[in-house]
Amino acid sequence: MYRTHTCGELRMEHASSEVTLAGWVQKTRELGGMIFVDLRDRYGITQLVFNKDQDADLCDKAKALGREFVIQVKGEVMERTAKNDKMATGNVELIASEMKVLSASKTPPFTIENETDGGEDIRMKYRFLDLRRPAVQENIMLRHRIAQESRSFLNKSGFLEIETPFLIRSTPEGARDFVVPSRMNEGQFYALPQSPQTFKQLLMVAGYDRYYQITRCFRDEDLRADRQPEFTQIDCEIAFVEQEDVLNMFEGLAKHIMKYVHNIDVAEVPRITFAEAMRLYGSDKPDIRFGMTFTELNDVAQNKGFKVFDDAELVVGICAEGCATYTRKQLDALTDFVKRPQIGAKGLVYVKCNEDGTFKSSVDKFFDQEKLKAWADKMGAKAGDLLLVISGVKEKARKQMNELRLEMGNQLGLRKKDDFKFLWVLDFPLLEWAEEEERWVARHHPFTSPKAEDFDKMDTDPGAVRANAYDMVLNGTELGGGSVRIHDRGLQERVFELLGMSKEEAVEKFGFLMGAFEFGAPPHAGLAFGFDRMCALLGGADAIRDFIAFPKNNSGRDVMIDAPSKIDEVQYEELCIRAAPKVEA
Amino acid sequence: MYRTHTCGELRMEHASSEVTLAGWVQKTRELGGMIFVDLRDRYGITQLVFNKDQDADLCDKAKALGREFVIQVKGEVMERTAKNDKMATGNVELIASEMKVLSASKTPPFTIENETDGGEDIRMKYRFLDLRRPAVQENIMLRHRIAQESRSFLNKSGFLEIETPFLIRSTPEGARDFVVPSRMNEGQFYALPQSPQTFKQLLMVAGYDRYYQITRCFRDEDLRADRQPEFTQIDCEIAFVEQEDVLNMFEGLAKHIMKYVHNIDVAEVPRITFAEAMRLYGSDKPDIRFGMTFTELNDVAQNKGFKVFDDAELVVGICAEGCATYTRKQLDALTDFVKRPQIGAKGLVYVKCNEDGTFKSSVDKFFDQEKLKAWADKMGAKAGDLLLVISGVKEKARKQMNELRLEMGNQLGLRKKDDFKFLWVLDFPLLEWAEEEERWVARHHPFTSPKAEDFDKMDTDPGAVRANAYDMVLNGTELGGGSVRIHDRGLQERVFELLGMSKEEAVEKFGFLMGAFEFGAPPHAGLAFGFDRMCALLGGADAIRDFIAFPKNNSGRDVMIDAPSKIDEVQYEELCIRAAPKVEA
Repeated sequence: MYRTHTCGELRMEHASSEVTLAGWVQKTRELGGMIFVDLRDRYGITQLVFNKDQDADLCDKAKALGREFVIQVKGEVMERTAKNDKMATGNVELIASEMKVLSASKTPPFTIENETDGGEDIRMKYRFLDLRRPAVQENIMLRHRIAQESRSFLNKSGFLEIETPFLIRSTPEGARDFVVPSRMNEGQFYALPQSPQTFKQLLMVAGYDRYYQITRCFRDEDLRADRQPEFTQIDCEIAFVEQEDVLNMFEGLAKHIMKYVHNIDVAEVPRITFAEAMRLYGSDKPDIRFGMTFTELNDVAQNKGFKVFDDAELVVGICAEGCATYTRKQLDALTDFVKRPQIGAKGLVYVKCNEDGTFKSSVDKFFDQEKLKAWADKMGAKAGDLLLVISGVKEKARKQMNELRLEMGNQLGLRKKDDFKFLWVLDFPLLEWAEEEERWVARHHPFTSPKAEDFDKMDTDPGAVRANAYDMVLNGTELGGGSVRIHDRGLQERVFELLGMSKEEAVEKFGFLMGAFEFGAPPHAGLAFGFDRMCALLGGADAIRDFIAFPKNNSGRDVMIDAPSKIDEVQYEELCIRAAPKVEA
Repeated sequence: MYRTHTCGELRMEHASSEVTLAGWVQKTRELGGMIFVDLRDRYGITQLVFNKDQDADLCDKAKALGREFVIQVKGEVMERTAKNDKMATGNVELIASEMKVLSASKTPPFTIENETDGGEDIRMKYRFLDLRRPAVQENIMLRHRIAQESRSFLNKSGFLEIETPFLIRSTPEGARDFVVPSRMNEGQFYALPQSPQTFKQLLMVAGYDRYYQITRCFRDEDLRADRQPEFTQIDCEIAFVEQEDVLNMFEGLAKHIMKYVHNIDVAEVPRITFAEAMRLYGSDKPDIRFGMTFTELNDVAQNKGFKVFDDAELVVGICAEGCATYTRKQLDALTDFVKRPQIGAKGLVYVKCNEDGTFKSSVDKFFDQEKLKAWADKMGAKAGDLLLVISGVKEKARKQMNELRLEMGNQLGLRKKDDFKFLWVLDFPLLEWAEEEERWVARHHPFTSPKAEDFDKMDTDPGAVRANAYDMVLNGTELGGGSVRIHDRGLQERVFELLGMSKEEAVEKFGFLMGAFEFGAPPHAGLAFGFDRMCALLGGADAIRDFIAFPKNNSGRDVMIDAPSKIDEVQYEELCIRAAPKVEA
C-alpha cells in the first residue's frame, strides 16, 4: 500500500502519529517560510505542511509540485493552530518529512473544482479529469449507493438477479435496434436488447418467480437532449401477482431507496388514472409538488359571445395564487411563452382577481365582472390570484396548459429539487394511434394486457381499451413503468393483430414467446425503472449525463476515446459486409 | 396475489389453516379414491389431495390436469399420515377445496426433472422448460448468491460499482471484436468491450480509488467447447496498491464467497511462481487437490544407453501411489492416452515398484534394478507405487505430463468436486511469441507492467521479462487473473513498441489512455474473475453453460429465439452497409 490512511480520514485522535498519505495535489501556497499543499483523494482533502526551517530541500521539492501531481507523503499528524471547520480533516495537518512524486501532471485543461472553468466539450474529451471533480464523484457515488440499496431491497424481497443475453434477435417494434453482424453466421445479425422484456417473461414461464437485473439497454434513436444510446434499467418481473401487488412492491422499493439513500420517509404514494391525470394536469406524468390543477371552464366561458372560446372543444384554466400583481410585461411574457412553436397555443387569456374584489381580464369585452366571478368561483380563486385560461382542441389545449402550469411552478419556486413527490399513474390506454404509420401502436409494449372489462372494445373501439399498465412518476418525470403481461397465446395473438402484425410476422418475431405460453405460463407482471434518470432526480439534477461515468454526446459519440470509428478492411471481410455510402437523392 | 404461501413453505405449524398455493403440476396419481398432485414452484413441492368423497367434480377436474399445468388451489393444510422426510413440506399436505387452472400446458417435449430424458438440442430450444428443472434452478440461484456475496464483500471493502460503456472503440488486440455499425456516424462502428480494461484504468486516473463491476464482455472467437461469445466478469481495480495488496484483497473475496456461499473456511491460499508451476506441474494452472508433482530425472535417466532419453531435453516423471498393481491393459491404456494426437507424446515409460522391493519397468533393457531404484528414490516412491516417465523437448514433455497427471488424478479419484483448492500463480512472463504473426504478444494484456528488475531484459531478451501478473487458480482452472498496470506513458509506449505496434498505431488506438497518464496517474492494479466459470466450479460442474440462463450454442446461436437472424433491407440502408457474401477462393 502506498498509504496508511486516506485523505479524508485524519482527525484529532491521530495527532502525533506517523502516517503516509497518497493523492492528488489540489493546490499549493507559500506562506511565511512554509509550503501548504492540499492533498486530495476520493475520500477528502488533507493539508500538508512543508517547513523550510526543518527541511529546505523537501520544501523546494514541494514548491515544484504542480496541480494534479500524484504524490506520496510521510509525516506526523499535528493539531492545526487555525482550524478549518469546513473540512472533515480541518482540525489537523500533516507535517511532511518525506515526499515522493508518483506521477507528474501537465497543467489540466480546466480546473478540477466543482465550479470549473471548462466547457462541456473539453470536459467530455478529458472525461477522466472531469470525473475528478468532487461534484461528479458525488454523483457517481450516489449512483453506487442507489444500485446497492435497490439490490438490497429486492434481494430481501425474494428476487433473483438473473443475467439475460445482450446478443439477441432484432425485432424492431418502435425504436430501432443496434445490430451486430455475426461472423460465424454469414449474412445474419444479432441485435442489442432495447430491454430484456421477452427474456424476463420467459423467466417467469420458467418458474423463477421474482427476477431483477440492473442492466444496460440500447436504442438507436435520434438523440434528443439528454438521451443516451445506451442506458441502464432496474428491470423486474414477478409471477402470480396482480397489479396491486406490483404497485405495493415497487412503492416499497422507492421508499427503501429514499430512506436509505436520503433518509427521507416517503408517505403512501398517491395514485391517479391516466384519464384523471390528463384532465387535471394535461400530462401523464404530473408534477405534484404543487397544485394549480386544471379547471374546465366550458360551462361558464362558452356561449358568451367570445368566438375563440365558443369554437373550442375545451376551455381550461389554472389559478396562480398571489399572481394578480403580475405586470403587463410579465403577462406578455407568459403569452409569448405559450405561443412559442414548441407549445403552439394561439393565445392566453388572463383574469386578475384584484384585492378589492374586482376582476381585470384580457377579455373584458366579452365577460363582465359577474361572469368573471363565476370563473373565479369555479376555480376556487381568491383575491390576489391570477387566472390563466387556454382554449382549443382538448388534447392540444391540455398539453399547452401543462407547459404553462410547469412554467408557473418554476416562476413561483414550487418545484424544489429536494422535495420528492412520487405518484402512480394507472390505467393507461393500451394503444395509441401512430399518425405516420397510420396504425395502432402499443403505448407501453405489445406484451401488455388489456383490462378484462375493456376486452369487448378491442374490435369496436381499440383506442378506448385501457391497459393494466402503470407508471411511477417522480416530480413530473417518469421514473419507471410496467404492466401486467399477457400470458395467454390467444390474447397475445389478438393484440399483435390489433397492432397490424400479420400472423406470420408475429410468429417469426415472437413465436418463441407465444410458444412458451403454451407450456404453463403463470400470470405475471413487472416494471422497469430508468436508472440513470432515477440517479439524476435523486441527485437533484436534470441531466442524466452527469450521473454516467462515460456518457456519449448528442451525436452518440464518445469523444474521449473517439468512438465510433472506422474498422479495418479485414473486419469488413470477416463479417461479410461492406460499406454502402448513402446516395443523396 | 394468487397465493398465500409458496410451495416450499408449509410445515406442521400450518396444519388446520386455510391457504392458497399456485404453481406447476409436477405429477398426478390416483390412489384409492383420491387424486394426489405434486405442486411445484421455485421454492419447493407440496402435495395436494383431491378427495372423491368430498367433491367428485373437483376430483374430476384434478384428474384432467396434465404435467406443467399452472393451477391455483385453495384448501386446508393437514398433517400427513405417511410423512415424507425427503421433502421440506413432507409432513403436511393440502386438502384441496377449490382449484383453478391458470394456464394449461401441452405435454412438454422432455421431462422436467433433474434426470431428464431430453437431449441437449431440444433442451436448448425449449430453454424456458429446461430452466424449470430443479438442478438448473439451483445453478441460477447459486449464481445469484455468488454475485450478491461478491458485491457485499467489495462494497464493505470500499469499492464503488461503476458502469462502463458497452458501445466503445474497436481496438482488436488478440481476440476479435464484435462491432456495431453506427447509423448516426456513417461508415463508423462501435465495438462491444472484450473487457472494461481501459475504462477501469481511467477510473483510477480519475481518482475513484476502488472500482468493481459484474459485467458482460464479448469476444468474437471461434467457439471452443464451453466458451460463450458473451460472458460475465467480476472486474476490479484498485489505486495506490502493490501486487501484495491485490493478492490479499482478492484472496479475501474468494474466502468470503466460500464462507458465505458454501460455509467452507478457506485457509491461506498458497502461491507459486509461473516457473515453479511449469516445473512441478507442467501447467500455469495446477490442480493442487492432489500431489503427484513432477520430478526431473535427467541426471539419473540419461547417459545410460537409452537413446530416447539421451536425446531428450527433459526426462520427467510422476509417482502414482499404490498403482504398481496396474495391469498391462491399464498401462497400455495410459500409453494410448498420452499418444493421442491432442497430447502427442511419443511414448510412456513405466516403472512398477513392487511390494517385494524389486522394480519392473518398460525399459528394463536399459536400466537395471539399481538404476531404477535411483529413479524411485529421487521421486520419493515406495513399494507399491507406479512411476510414469515422459521425455522430449522440455515444454512439450511438461504439457504431456500435465495431461497424464490430471488423468491419473481422475483415475485415482483425487479430483473431488467438493474439494476446493485455491492457488495463486505469480510472475508470469510479460510476453509470449506468436508463431503465426511472428511477433511478441502480451501474455496478459498490453497494460501489464514488467517487473522493475527485468527492465534491462526488455531489449535484450524480451521473452525472459517477467510481469507483475497473477492468476487465481481453483482446482486446476483459471478463476481470474490480473496485473499491476503501467501508469507511465513512457513505459507504456515502450511496451507497445515491444508488441510491434507503431507509434502512430499506439496513439490511434490507445492515445486517450496514454494521454491520461500525463495528468497524474496513480499506481494501480486489478483483477478480473471469470464469473460464469466461478459459478460452475463452485457448483461442482464443468460446463459454464448450465450456469447461464440463456446460453448460446457452439455456433454462437441462441436456438430458442433463433438469433442471429437476417435483418430488414431498411436496416441495411439506414446503417449504410450491405451484405458482401464470402467468395470461395
